[in-house]
Amino acid sequence: MGDLDELRERVRQFSAERDWDRFHDPKSVLLALVGEVGELAELFQWLPAEAAATMAAEEPLRSRAGEEMSDVLLYLILLADVLEIDLATAALAKLADNARRYPPGWSPG
Amino acid sequence: MGDLDELRERVRQFSAERDWDRFHDPKSVLLALVGEVGELAELFQWLPAEAAATMAAEEPLRSRAGEEMSDVLLYLILLADVLEIDLATAALAKLADNARRYPPGWSPG
Amino acid sequence: MGDLDELRERVRQFSAERDWDRFHDPKSVLLALVGEVGELAELFQWLPAEAAATMAAEEPLRSRAGEEMSDVLLYLILLADVLEIDLATAALAKLADNARRYPPGWSPG
Amino acid sequence: MGDLDELRERVRQFSAERDWDRFHDPKSVLLALVGEVGELAELFQWLPAEAAATMAAEEPLRSRAGEEMSDVLLYLILLADVLEIDLATAALAKLADNARRYPPGWSPG
Repeated sequence: MGDLDELRERVRQFSAERDWDRFHDPKSVLLALVGEVGELAELFQWLPAEAAATMAAEEPLRSRAGEEMSDVLLYLILLADVLEIDLATAALAKLADNARRYPPGWSPG
Repeated sequence: MGDLDELRERVRQFSAERDWDRFHDPKSVLLALVGEVGELAELFQWLPAEAAATMAAEEPLRSRAGEEMSDVLLYLILLADVLEIDLATAALAKLADNARRYPPGWSPG
Repeated sequence: MGDLDELRERVRQFSAERDWDRFHDPKSVLLALVGEVGELAELFQWLPAEAAATMAAEEPLRSRAGEEMSDVLLYLILLADVLEIDLATAALAKLADNARRYPPGWSPG
Repeated sequence: MGDLDELRERVRQFSAERDWDRFHDPKSVLLALVGEVGELAELFQWLPAEAAATMAAEEPLRSRAGEEMSDVLLYLILLADVLEIDLATAALAKLADNARRYPPGWSPG
């Protein structure tokens, strides 16, 4: 089982044990994802652009970034589950599509 | 190799073949992720909440949702790679942490 | 009448003339606002941080940024109207509150 | 002076008194706006869609929503100021443009 599948199983179990499935319509889960993206943005907003990666390699920012990115991923996995979309398959297809649209050497000019 | 690792490898290769790594500081990738979350939101914004899942099971919305969710995932994987964070490990740890903070039966009251 | 009030009146009239009020529950309007924030982010995502302001002073980016910022503002005004919140009053109160929380000379250290 | 102009003057003064202008490049301010949109989303995410407006009319949610919407507005005003865009003028022009694109009776079908 791939790790996205494993995470989906755990997200399902977590939600079922708390009877939270009833809250998980697509628009609600999407707003929850937006909330987590906002928390991630708050970690980086005032960092100098060119130093952000270096600063994010230090604690406590490193752990905080990992947590907020995890929250984004977990809500994305939940949304995909609610919509019965296989994220791994969809993402591989999208990468292949991107490769066709932007061949190596492509430039926007 | 897990599917998040596989996607990360493909994202790396895609970026390297186009010499796009130079654009991938954390704040830029984060804004790109915000852009994709916005496109995902636009698909669902005016759907009736209780009918959104059913409507999203039909084409063309189903494919569009899968594409936008894939874009969110791919930028999240790219951001994790830039920050040298292992998303699968971080997400499993966050789920375990959530389970401690919200034991089954927990209510916000 | 202040310009936020004037914009609210025009947003109301625009919506009423198209019978769009029925779509304007808070979560839907909020997702529409997220969509516009995403479009704004897409304009800036790959610009070098230190050159972004200068580049955004040139057309066509200048007009595009004004349009996307306008869309964000118009959905914010619509959301405030749906929630019967006076944005100008609320924003002045929030600025006064911020001034108390962050006195001049305050630092996060 | 319109209320958007007045708010801009106060935002400028607030920032100048704290010497925060140096942090206010467009991408940083945009990420701060994303952070506030995320906080606004968190207030509404789990509310039932059809009851959200009624629930948001009650305290403490009413005040919380006003505060988060104010933060979104204040960062939008700051971003417009950094970009030297007149928000009120831009929003009126966008509304006129929308009226042309979506004449009354327009439907997406």
